[in-house]
Amino acid sequence: MHRKIIPDIVNDQTICAMATDETARQAAEKMVDRNVAAVVILDADGKLLGIVTERDLTRRVVAVGLAGDETKLGDIMTPNPDTLGPNDSALDALELMRIRNFRHLPVLDDGRVVGMVSIRDLYAAVKVELEENIRETEAFVFGDRYGA
Amino acid sequence: MHRKIIPDIVNDQTICAMATDETARQAAEKMVDRNVAAVVILDADGKLLGIVTERDLTRRVVAVGLAGDETKLGDIMTPNPDTLGPNDSALDALELMRIRNFRHLPVLDDGRVVGMVSIRDLYAAVKVELEENIRETEAFVFGDRYGA
Repeated sequence: MHRKIIPDIVNDQTICAMATDETARQAAEKMVDRNVAAVVILDADGKLLGIVTERDLTRRVVAVGLAGDETKLGDIMTPNPDTLGPNDSALDALELMRIRNFRHLPVLDDGRVVGMVSIRDLYAAVKVELEENIRETEAFVFGDRYGA
Repeated sequence: MHRKIIPDIVNDQTICAMATDETARQAAEKMVDRNVAAVVILDADGKLLGIVTERDLTRRVVAVGLAGDETKLGDIMTPNPDTLGPNDSALDALELMRIRNFRHLPVLDDGRVVGMVSIRDLYAAVKVELEENIRETEAFVFGDRYGA
């Protein structure tokens, strides 16, 4: 079975959404609280504007000597990020991440952000898929009911 | 074939090594320069003391309002990290990362740090391994020389 982004990977996930005028420190605090590595930046209408990850905080705040308290997310976000759709396959998503060197991608459904997937989530799903594929091939060879 | 950490994953890799008295900002700058997400912290004899990742910079610097210029790596590193050996398998390493929620592990050979592997490196290797496994199983079923 080919796993799809929804419901196999993203499933009732709460979104970590922030606004452009919140600070890098607030984003880092939220990442700690929610144990995530990326937040989405939305406008007042809930439209996706950008994404901020641990990598952005490292490269666009710490590495350049900015103060996290004074740096607005609007100034350090990656604007207009690539996104996934609910029916995209986990394998295609992983391939997109590999090629573009992303570790997180927001999932949009009908224009709204409904989740965020990480390379870790996708890897877990794809591993299960490949293992199932092996088992099915073996079952075809040896019969699928060893005990019967 | 089961892929091993050396030479299949880590292969002639340069180490990003720093000292405890260097700063968070210097580590972030090095991560940008070298396009990595983690550095190892060594003592003067080259012994592994700890590891500092983008996650550590996010959680132990930005989230708590520290200045990257004034924060020493010795104060924010994860001391005595888990490590891999050169003969560990990629699958075992990935399983360790999944269970312990790590994304990077240093590789030690005879007490020296010889590399750093990321969950991304390992995923790529394991994916190839599982695909080969499927191909070999299929070759066993259908014959491995379709054109012969």
